[in-house]
Amino acid sequence: MYTQTKIEIRKPAKDIFDAFINPSKIGNFWFSSSSERWSEGKAITIKYDEYEAEGIIHILTMIDSYKIVYEWGREDGEPHIVTIILHESQPDKTIVEVTEEGFDQDDPDVIHKLVDNKGGWVYALTCLKGYLEYGTSRLRAALVH
Amino acid sequence: MYTQTKIEIRKPAKDIFDAFINPSKIGNFWFSSSSERWSEGKAITIKYDEYEAEGIIHILTMIDSYKIVYEWGREDGEPHIVTIILHESQPDKTIVEVTEEGFDQDDPDVIHKLVDNKGGWVYALTCLKGYLEYGTSRLRAALVH
Repeated sequence: MYTQTKIEIRKPAKDIFDAFINPSKIGNFWFSSSSERWSEGKAITIKYDEYEAEGIIHILTMIDSYKIVYEWGREDGEPHIVTIILHESQPDKTIVEVTEEGFDQDDPDVIHKLVDNKGGWVYALTCLKGYLEYGTSRLRAALVH
Repeated sequence: MYTQTKIEIRKPAKDIFDAFINPSKIGNFWFSSSSERWSEGKAITIKYDEYEAEGIIHILTMIDSYKIVYEWGREDGEPHIVTIILHESQPDKTIVEVTEEGFDQDDPDVIHKLVDNKGGWVYALTCLKGYLEYGTSRLRAALVH
């Protein structure tokens, strides 16, 4: 099972791509930090200082300004694959499409996990839109669990 | 079955309450319009111009700067109850808690509806946070379905 979220951001694909892979930008809309610049084959440590949490993501595929595929949860025995695709529809309008796969339909908690995951992606992408379009840097890390 | 979403907004509860009930504000973060100022007992027509959609919400309870309960979907035979509670934790910080009840666990499409609903609430509340904290008015209506 999977979740999918799509949002339109009024920026070129290259700006959105850079926001994901550039460790100086990610803290403005998503995790608090990533350990280095993302590139294919790397294992990146991402941290949420606010929740005292961290994890490792493995970058499987990167196509400049178009696509990022990474795996996370490998160390927890429940690997998920995340695919981010940037569809630039006009010079400064891009649909960001995120698909996360790997939910086990036999997990008794699967509905909760899907719902929570969808909320997380909508949140991250709305914060990304705010950051790129308006320069907001403190919309993130305000969802209460 | 229900969804619940909570977010912290760095504003007093009265400002958040007014953003929901004041028809001159709602178009900055959620629906494109509501037909009149919300108050207990009223039926309000809300519109999403972008999706050519409209609906009626029935305001069941309002407690100033603290709580709003409304019903929607009555006309479609699938009434949902939405409860918005504002927990002001400090003079300028409020947790907004939204619970939506009425999902039928026997509906074969219920997982999709819960996931979609959660995404919708996270989106509306993040746009509300952006609007009140930063003055963003065009984060809304960018999710692609």
